[in-house]
Amino acid sequence: MTALKINETSEQTKENSLAIAAQKTQRGARELAGFSSEVKNQAIEAIAQALEDHAPEIIAANQADCEAAAQEGVAGALQARLKLDAGKLKAAIAGVRDVGRLPDPVGAVQLHRELDTDLVLTRLSCPLGVVGVIFESRPDAVMQISSLAIKSGNGVILKGGREAVRSCTALVKAIHQGLASTQVSPDVVQLLTTREETLELLSLDQYIDLIIPRGSNAFVQFIQSNTQIPVLGHADGICHLYVDRGADFTKAINVTVDSKIQYPAACNAIETLLVHADIAADFLPLVAAELTKHGVELRGDDRTQAIIPTIPATEADWAMEYSDLILAIKVVDDFNHALDHISAYGSKHTEVIVTEDVAIAQTFLKQVDAAGVFHNCSSRFADGFRYGFGAEVGISTHKLPPRGPVGLEGLVTYKYQLVGNGQMVASYTGAAAKAFLHRDL
Amino acid sequence: MTALKINETSEQTKENSLAIAAQKTQRGARELAGFSSEVKNQAIEAIAQALEDHAPEIIAANQADCEAAAQEGVAGALQARLKLDAGKLKAAIAGVRDVGRLPDPVGAVQLHRELDTDLVLTRLSCPLGVVGVIFESRPDAVMQISSLAIKSGNGVILKGGREAVRSCTALVKAIHQGLASTQVSPDVVQLLTTREETLELLSLDQYIDLIIPRGSNAFVQFIQSNTQIPVLGHADGICHLYVDRGADFTKAINVTVDSKIQYPAACNAIETLLVHADIAADFLPLVAAELTKHGVELRGDDRTQAIIPTIPATEADWAMEYSDLILAIKVVDDFNHALDHISAYGSKHTEVIVTEDVAIAQTFLKQVDAAGVFHNCSSRFADGFRYGFGAEVGISTHKLPPRGPVGLEGLVTYKYQLVGNGQMVASYTGAAAKAFLHRDL
Repeated sequence: MTALKINETSEQTKENSLAIAAQKTQRGARELAGFSSEVKNQAIEAIAQALEDHAPEIIAANQADCEAAAQEGVAGALQARLKLDAGKLKAAIAGVRDVGRLPDPVGAVQLHRELDTDLVLTRLSCPLGVVGVIFESRPDAVMQISSLAIKSGNGVILKGGREAVRSCTALVKAIHQGLASTQVSPDVVQLLTTREETLELLSLDQYIDLIIPRGSNAFVQFIQSNTQIPVLGHADGICHLYVDRGADFTKAINVTVDSKIQYPAACNAIETLLVHADIAADFLPLVAAELTKHGVELRGDDRTQAIIPTIPATEADWAMEYSDLILAIKVVDDFNHALDHISAYGSKHTEVIVTEDVAIAQTFLKQVDAAGVFHNCSSRFADGFRYGFGAEVGISTHKLPPRGPVGLEGLVTYKYQLVGNGQMVASYTGAAAKAFLHRDL
Repeated sequence: MTALKINETSEQTKENSLAIAAQKTQRGARELAGFSSEVKNQAIEAIAQALEDHAPEIIAANQADCEAAAQEGVAGALQARLKLDAGKLKAAIAGVRDVGRLPDPVGAVQLHRELDTDLVLTRLSCPLGVVGVIFESRPDAVMQISSLAIKSGNGVILKGGREAVRSCTALVKAIHQGLASTQVSPDVVQLLTTREETLELLSLDQYIDLIIPRGSNAFVQFIQSNTQIPVLGHADGICHLYVDRGADFTKAINVTVDSKIQYPAACNAIETLLVHADIAADFLPLVAAELTKHGVELRGDDRTQAIIPTIPATEADWAMEYSDLILAIKVVDDFNHALDHISAYGSKHTEVIVTEDVAIAQTFLKQVDAAGVFHNCSSRFADGFRYGFGAEVGISTHKLPPRGPVGLEGLVTYKYQLVGNGQMVASYTGAAAKAFLHRDL
């Protein structure tokens, strides 16, 4: 009984301490929401300078992480992602300064309307509040995310991977020292270091307004199913490319190959190729030759197999994100069957049509329900940097905004400000009701 | 065992039939998403005409509902809401035509950018897909919601109250007959009539993109905790009015009284009055006299009770939405204590400050986290019609958009269309990488 009691107390204290820390971040963020772009940019520059000043400690801490990872036999790819040497750190600090130069997403006037004389409604963008970011390895995420959060007026609670704990701690220490000399409270950037804290973080819906998970599909799925807090992210990316009867074969082959092989592990790579029956016999051998040349394994339905040799595709193939050099191929009767297949199996990420038939392309762009609908170009363009957002906070396959690749605007929401002169609603109701002006300013 | 088997089968058949119906609505909506404003407006006019043509049947069906409700001893207020006589029907049909005249929320270009020559990105508003609307009594909701859904290019699945089943069925029959003569499939408007179907509806996240509940707080809360589908709505509205040290007393009294008594059951009525300590002794007696004159019950904290007689307020009062002529009053040390109280107890709906101190007002508008932040005007202005939206689909207290009173734009999302000429991402990477133009058009 005594042991149990002690456990309970220690549990409770830890929980309280995380909630208290989150509350401090929330308070800091409330203040930050009121600061000008200039004050926020000064804070970002102070962070960049502090990171430069503390480079030796940061690199040493990272070396200790890397050595521990090597001793524990961590996989090579993970060790590579973990590494933060002088060159990588310099690039990341340049990235922090780039964020400083981005336009301020806060304070944009989206609506400005005189409801009546001296009663003015303004809808303007404002910070979300506090963002929780949970990421695996890559300690450089700390710098990018902290600067994006401050730029958008948000507090941030960071949870990095266990293997990067020394690096993340050194980075956040430098960030805190940088902020100490500015108007922005160091409380706005918090670091969590234990796995247990992740689960607690997911329960703090009173203090955290958005969770951004960065990691594998399974990781994102775990986060999504363990929190009431909105999650910016997506668990899968099953993207299709439909080669229409009216396709230019050269474009179709180029776009198919690029969409599959340019980076197969990316969520915006295609998993299934849909080919119109009228051109399948001519097109499939050509595209298969190119794909095979690049080492892509093909899995075809019966009609595909009647034209080219492939591994037989099963029902499971249509619903699978290979994230690898594998492509499922299906011959469809017509455009509507392509749409039905995409509607049934697509994850609303990015869908592509290749055709010279502009009317068909227009219908595809209108009717296909996905964050990105592309005509005659690679699915791999679905990316915040390629879209020119300057930064990518995440990619969302939710239907409600923000949708698709999300830049800084994913870290802001909006509010309605109404400024009057003592007006009452009673004056605008009943027999002698005043009329509203509703005049946009 | 036999009985159990029969139940299972019938359960399954019913479930399938609802899923099949939802799929039909989804297909109809996909087609609808491609139609022009003109085609959608023709469909809305056809609905208005069909409702006029079927007015006698609709009114007769409603009379049968009303008689049944009277026999069952349904509460008077509910019976009043249920009633749809010739006058109310005429007004509702006029409302349908009003929706036809609203600007089309679909197809608005939010971003138009040349990524490179012949590679153009467009972000534009598009329908959500299928919206599920669950409402209590008021059969006129059927007409308003169906026309709003079609205007915004969405299919809609309606679930009305049991007591309004005859009215809703007659209305939807007329709507279907109206749509039959247009390009828009009657499948886009579906009506469910049994309570069991509500729970099934909430599980159809494959076919339904947004749920809009219209009813009591408890009802909305039930919906929210029983579905994975996004819900547009809010379960509570705890709004505060803070009377600052720098307030004009006349304005403060007028705005307080209007915010409390103009429609106490509304979510945008205030529940708590916060008063700066420096003016409490002068202000509280004046405002209390006016509130008491209008029958408002006052519940005060200790410092309030030292100035005016009130019922003692307990901790529970700060967290309660009275929806009635009751007002909790608290004296706060200063502006920051007011902000802390609002942050702790507010439901992020609408928060008001009354002050002549413009700097303090500005800080309030910036730092208070709510869908509506008001200065020197009644909280009751937080309403889609008063904001000039032409229609109000719902009010959201979520932090992510859409937030606050939501008009037609709450029924649309956006997508990115990228139109190219065979471009591959490989051309923009590596040693000989092409640069993006990122030129806004």
